[in-house]
This record gives sequence, structure tokens and C-alpha cells, in this order.
Amino acid sequence: MPDSTKPRKPAVILLSGGLDSATTAAVARAEGFDIHALSVDYGQRHRFELESARNVANSLGAVEHRIVKIDLAAFGGSALTADIDVPKDRPADEMSAGIPVTYVPARNTVMLSIALGYAEVIGAADIFIGVNAVDYSGYPDCRPEFIAAFEQVANLATKAGVEGTLKFHIHTPLIQLTKAEIIRRGVQLGVDYALTHTCYAPDDCGVSCGRCDACQLRIKGFAEAGLADPIAYADV
Amino acid sequence: MPDSTKPRKPAVILLSGGLDSATTAAVARAEGFDIHALSVDYGQRHRFELESARNVANSLGAVEHRIVKIDLAAFGGSALTADIDVPKDRPADEMSAGIPVTYVPARNTVMLSIALGYAEVIGAADIFIGVNAVDYSGYPDCRPEFIAAFEQVANLATKAGVEGTLKFHIHTPLIQLTKAEIIRRGVQLGVDYALTHTCYAPDDCGVSCGRCDACQLRIKGFAEAGLADPIAYADV
Repeated sequence: MPDSTKPRKPAVILLSGGLDSATTAAVARAEGFDIHALSVDYGQRHRFELESARNVANSLGAVEHRIVKIDLAAFGGSALTADIDVPKDRPADEMSAGIPVTYVPARNTVMLSIALGYAEVIGAADIFIGVNAVDYSGYPDCRPEFIAAFEQVANLATKAGVEGTLKFHIHTPLIQLTKAEIIRRGVQLGVDYALTHTCYAPDDCGVSCGRCDACQLRIKGFAEAGLADPIAYADV
Repeated sequence: MPDSTKPRKPAVILLSGGLDSATTAAVARAEGFDIHALSVDYGQRHRFELESARNVANSLGAVEHRIVKIDLAAFGGSALTADIDVPKDRPADEMSAGIPVTYVPARNTVMLSIALGYAEVIGAADIFIGVNAVDYSGYPDCRPEFIAAFEQVANLATKAGVEGTLKFHIHTPLIQLTKAEIIRRGVQLGVDYALTHTCYAPDDCGVSCGRCDACQLRIKGFAEAGLADPIAYADV
């Protein structure tokens, strides 16, 4: 529980609207930070993620929620932003082999850069991102060595970092947790997972497919945590 | 002169439309790269820079020119994106003291991140940015240590970097040159500086003020190079 007598510090939380970033925001709140939520609209093929982000930010009492639009889809190169099919029904060993087509080039670098600018303007030294190196080991920009390198950039790139008024720290509270551990942690912290959106290939009404890699990992995570997933799936 | 028998490699050039980035693009071309120009519209207060970028890209024979829009102005925090007055008529010693109000939080980190995504998609290992640590020593994200740290991020963040298909290199050909040296180099390489835009506070028709820090440095640079500046100024 947060200590209400302690002054709270601002933190920027990258909030996609997914399960991981919602849990990350709840961890930040529990650690005594005020939540300044930041969603980056990088040209995802559907808008349900951003709606979920808004709902999650509200439910966690965020001080503010900013959405920054940037058209990474203009470059293509990913199933999440270009016209490439999202793979479905892949077996677990195939999911964990190599870098998936849902990889968006330089996504986390772009998102952390924008978070850095926002953090500097509001005077926040702390940036939270819900990357995870266990279930999604295929994404290079989810690994601890990438995060450490970016933290160094943050402190060299900014007026606040160079002048020493802020020492930037990139928090990755989920980086070594399994999906089941993330879900248990979130439930302890009161996250309402009904508000979150995970699916890469939802139908026109936002209903999750249950078959893409992201859905499969979520379903497996809830099963392993011994908890019921509050969202509905189309094909399961 | 480029060797026309050698196969040319693609490079991403961050092109603002200013004098430095135009010279940088010309250097890249002279070094045998095909120019894939990238302009980032980060909510600058005027659009003349982007028009200049388009004209410079055309004049240098760029293979393509992409403009990516991102609304950094939403955060404020800079005279270039928010409603803060651009300083004018500052003496040289004041210009070189500390970090100017025209500093845009995390600007070069954001721009290099976007360039990195673009480079990965088109298979370019080389990214050029016209930062300069001599005349603009006030900007933390123009220093060699920042560039080196970002280069490390680039190779850790990307599929191509991790799989070893591309070894990213951030080129900063102007970083140790004075403005006069930059101009002389550009003239040797055939840059048409009439197409470039430098002023932080142009009038409604795009005419440069001649009094902001950027104009003053440009005017001084041409004078020291012993060359005529082809653009007009309002107040000089």
C-alpha cells in the first residue's frame, strides 16, 4: 500500500493498454509515484489498445494521460503496422524461436525517447516500461542490456541529465517475471484486467481472437496463475 | 567526387532543411551513399524548415524523402515548440553560455530513434545527422558521447543489429567543424545554401530575422568563410 504521508514523485509510465503496461502502472503507483501515463499511437492497425489505455489510466488514478501520435506505419516492416498477416495458432516452440513478424522496428527506442522528452518537461526522473524478457524473448528491445544502454542515453541526451537536476532511471518491474507472475502481481495491486487489451488481431468490435501469439500467452498466463481471465475471446 | 563504378549503399540522412543537415547530406552523397532523407516534423512553430528540406532533398538527388510527424509540441518546454520568445541580438558570450531555451527536450534522441526504425526497414546501416559540438555546445544531444551512446542503443535495440545483418553507424561529419568550415565544405560539394532555412523566428513569408542565435551564427559563419550568404534577412 502506498504511504500517503510521503510526498509522491511524478513518473512517466508507457501505457499501451495491454496487460503488462497496466501492471507496470500499478507497480509504479504502489511504489509511491504519481502516474503520468503516456500512450504512443505509432500507427497500430486497431484503436482498441488506445481506448484500453485511457480506461486503465483512469482506473489507476493517473494524474494525466497523454497520447502522442507518430506514424511509424509509414515505414512498414511489421505485422502490427503494415499489411502483413498476424500469425495464429502457432505452437509455443515456434513462438519462442527468433524475432516475430509483429516486431516493430525501433519501437521501444522511439517510445522511450518520447517518454524521455515528456519526463524532462514535467521534471520526472523515473520512466516505467512494461517490457518482459521472459515470454517475449524474441524482441531485442525488451532485453536488460537494451534498457541499460537507453538509460545511459537518457542521461547524456538531456539538459536535466547533463546539469544533474534529474538522474533518469528506466524502471522495468516486469522484465524477469513470467506472464503468470505478472498477472498475480497485478491482481494483488488491484488491476482490473477486464479493461486491458492484448490481442494483435481483434474483430471489428474489439473482441480478442484468442489465437494470435499475444492472446495465447495471455490465456496461458491466466491458466498458470490459476485465475480467470475477465475478457471474452472469439475463437476459443 | 563519388565513384560511379562502386555500388552505392543506402543511408538515412536526418534533413531539417537547415545549413548543417544540407551539408551533411552532401557529405553522405560524396562518400558514396544513396540519400534516403528523413525530416521529422516535431511541431516546429513554422513550416519553412520542412519546405527547405524538400527542396534540399530534391537538389541533392535524394532517392526518397520521408516526413514523419510527431507532436512534441504537446509537451512544450522549448522556445521552438511552445509559446516562449526566441531570444534575439544576444552577444556571442551569452549564446555560448549554458543550454539555450531553443533546446527541445530529447529532440535528437527522438529523431535518431525514428531514423533507426526507417534505416532498419530499408536495410541501411548508416545514419547521418548534422550535429555540431562547436557552435552549439549548449545542446547536450549534440555531443560525441551522446552519439556514441545512441549508436550502442541502435545495435542492441534492433532485429538487424542483434542478428548481425546490419551494424549501425551514426555518422556526424560536422561534429568538430566550425560554421565557416561547414559552409566551405558544403560549397565545395555543391550545396545550394539559397535553399536552406536557418532562422528560428522568420516572418510570415519565411524571411529570416537575422537576429536570433541561429541567424547570427549563420551570418558569422559566411563572413568567416569569406563567402556571400545567398539568403535575405529582414533586420540586418
